Amino acid sequence: MLLAGLGLPAAAQESPPSAEASDPVALGWMQGFPPPPERIIGQPDADYFSFPKLRWTVCHFRELLPTRRVSRGLGAPRALAEAPDAGIDAVTFTPLGGGAPMTWAASLAANYTDGILVLHRGRVVYERYAGCLDEAGMHGAMSVTKSITGLLGEILVAEGALDETARVATILPELADSAFGNATVQQVMEMTTGLDFSEDYADPDAEIWAYNAAASPLPKPEGYEGPRTYYEFLATVEPEGIHGEVFGYRTVNSDVLGWLIARTTGRSVADLLSERLWQPMGAEQDAYFTVDSIGTPFAGGGLSAGLRDLARVGQLMLDGGELDGERLFPEAAVARIRQGGDRQAFARAGYSNLPGGSYRGMWWVLHNDHGAFTARGVHGQALYVDPTARMVIARFASHPVAGNAANDPTSLPAYQALAEYLMQRE
Amino acid sequence: MLLAGLGLPAAAQESPPSAEASDPVALGWMQGFPPPPERIIGQPDADYFSFPKLRWTVCHFRELLPTRRVSRGLGAPRALAEAPDAGIDAVTFTPLGGGAPMTWAASLAANYTDGILVLHRGRVVYERYAGCLDEAGMHGAMSVTKSITGLLGEILVAEGALDETARVATILPELADSAFGNATVQQVMEMTTGLDFSEDYADPDAEIWAYNAAASPLPKPEGYEGPRTYYEFLATVEPEGIHGEVFGYRTVNSDVLGWLIARTTGRSVADLLSERLWQPMGAEQDAYFTVDSIGTPFAGGGLSAGLRDLARVGQLMLDGGELDGERLFPEAAVARIRQGGDRQAFARAGYSNLPGGSYRGMWWVLHNDHGAFTARGVHGQALYVDPTARMVIARFASHPVAGNAANDPTSLPAYQALAEYLMQRE
Repeated sequence: MLLAGLGLPAAAQESPPSAEASDPVALGWMQGFPPPPERIIGQPDADYFSFPKLRWTVCHFRELLPTRRVSRGLGAPRALAEAPDAGIDAVTFTPLGGGAPMTWAASLAANYTDGILVLHRGRVVYERYAGCLDEAGMHGAMSVTKSITGLLGEILVAEGALDETARVATILPELADSAFGNATVQQVMEMTTGLDFSEDYADPDAEIWAYNAAASPLPKPEGYEGPRTYYEFLATVEPEGIHGEVFGYRTVNSDVLGWLIARTTGRSVADLLSERLWQPMGAEQDAYFTVDSIGTPFAGGGLSAGLRDLARVGQLMLDGGELDGERLFPEAAVARIRQGGDRQAFARAGYSNLPGGSYRGMWWVLHNDHGAFTARGVHGQALYVDPTARMVIARFASHPVAGNAANDPTSLPAYQALAEYLMQRE
Repeated sequence: MLLAGLGLPAAAQESPPSAEASDPVALGWMQGFPPPPERIIGQPDADYFSFPKLRWTVCHFRELLPTRRVSRGLGAPRALAEAPDAGIDAVTFTPLGGGAPMTWAASLAANYTDGILVLHRGRVVYERYAGCLDEAGMHGAMSVTKSITGLLGEILVAEGALDETARVATILPELADSAFGNATVQQVMEMTTGLDFSEDYADPDAEIWAYNAAASPLPKPEGYEGPRTYYEFLATVEPEGIHGEVFGYRTVNSDVLGWLIARTTGRSVADLLSERLWQPMGAEQDAYFTVDSIGTPFAGGGLSAGLRDLARVGQLMLDGGELDGERLFPEAAVARIRQGGDRQAFARAGYSNLPGGSYRGMWWVLHNDHGAFTARGVHGQALYVDPTARMVIARFASHPVAGNAANDPTSLPAYQALAEYLMQRE
């Protein structure tokens, strides 16, 4: 099963069906009482995160798996100001790697966008839904979850509750004998730990498969002898290389951070997210995490949320933790992220679509002229913050290809063009 | 797994630990990262609904099972007016069957109450939480779910969308060869169908076990050949006796009603509940249903909700479907329920704690001087409406004994005493 990551882009090797042809509503997944057998996506169904089924599944994880709530509390939501801009659809950009110019409107279907919301100066200038999503629905954030966990971590660091120079084993003795034990909290948060852990889904021997098996909240197969929870698995990760030298994007770091946060605060990531962000920011929906067999939230990829609430997090990042004149967390938490991580360690990893970038607090920092930084999740999830343009873009998608290299060519330059359009408009 | 029903009161044969001694917070279930092994309630854990673990589980079904949301929508909740009455704790009553007089306050611990809210003339006069619950939490409603499903059914009947005189097979041809096929919708809604179906949990051959196995959303055991969904199971139920003669409290009727509702409206019970009640009544929390392997909500017992939202449903029942001068559903839907079902058919079933009562629209009608009617769920769940006293009581509990006969002696007369107190106070 699941969620740790990258899915299987097998279908994408040939030309996959278009957004329109793979629309989950048009395909009729799970419609009817009961749905026709060939249109059921149920549990257990090893196939539920394959394309095009995943275009339904991204909005319905809780119907397939146990989950833990992120409560919005009981009060009224804080309204988002609306200032729609009819000109945005016509904004034009050139895809990365060349090709014909494309409009913003055309990029949405090209990227199998399920929902996209743009805030400019705190007001909603653009909001569209498609596929399985509407404004009252929720969507899997995939690895955008990491950045939310990372933000909580940076908040704790900025408040002095979590020492980023501490070795992990001093906080989590259970990890003393694992690769994480002698890594610093900061190395975990920048993903420069040296781990013998592969997230290559094309390799059947990759450790990610064992991680997924350990993480599943469903009964283990007969004869299964491996770890049964996130925590048990994390203790088995072996070292490889030297901490601090090379950026290595591995989900296990996020779950170690989730564990560090829980041990430090006495709250699960789900509960802390509710207390520190979802309640005070006036979220309009609860969110939730998928969990393992002992209820541990999947800090590396298990969050589902409403698009508008994801955008609210982005606006908080843009405003350095302030909302309506109230400070929700120290500005230093965002400042650390914006400053970025070790660019040399990042360069050694060779991420061709983010040249010159870095990774800090589990956010991707572009180090471009606008100082943009972004959360990214497989199949096209994104929370993109451009401080210069005072623009936030929240985006849920169900692209057939897991890796964001498939949608970066028609999303990153679109974001930049939109930023320029909004700045020019001012 | 389960939830269809009644749990296993084995622990209650001896004297079970008190509410204080079995408090789930004091016992430390699921506290810590990870919790100590002996304090884990995880999935799969065949034991998770045994006492005292169930005192934790009733607030955490979604962490153990796939679920489907009942959305409250995105707006602000409608506030409940508050008018706390400090005199209620001292209200005194004599338990059914005699015994020493007891105060209202003492009855709460005696009944392992997790949350209780009293509305009088639409205002909150009393609200208390204990055990696993607080005002921002949710709790399993168990068979109170049936009454919510029943209300939706009565609304559709009152609106003319569902013909209560129709034979079930004319709406659900899949059930033509089952016991339900030639029963009327009304017989289903009054549970006077003649079914070869036992809900006696003490009998290992009772059909309820096969129902639970079919209903589980988890992978079926190796070699399992039985039905795999609620719908598949319902088609296998055999007839016994004659429809309309005897009341027989069987959960399968509620799930047939849930199916009738879905086929009639094109919406699952979860979605219809959101549209017809949760959104318009201004619920302050989403609610949710547990589901089977194809996402079918458990209409007979799968609802979890906040206490205050359950109370809002009760107030709507009291006010005949009106809220703040707005009509949410036809008054006839409540009038049918208050009028009651076939009292002779009910008497033949011999429910000793509800003498002279009846069952209509999946509500228990007391036919007492106050015209009270109530929803009831195992382990002490209740939504009690007293139209004469203009009182609504919503109650969640985790009594060690499943059957309400164990808590009726210290709850039903307490409700009556409180009604008299509130009327006298006026």
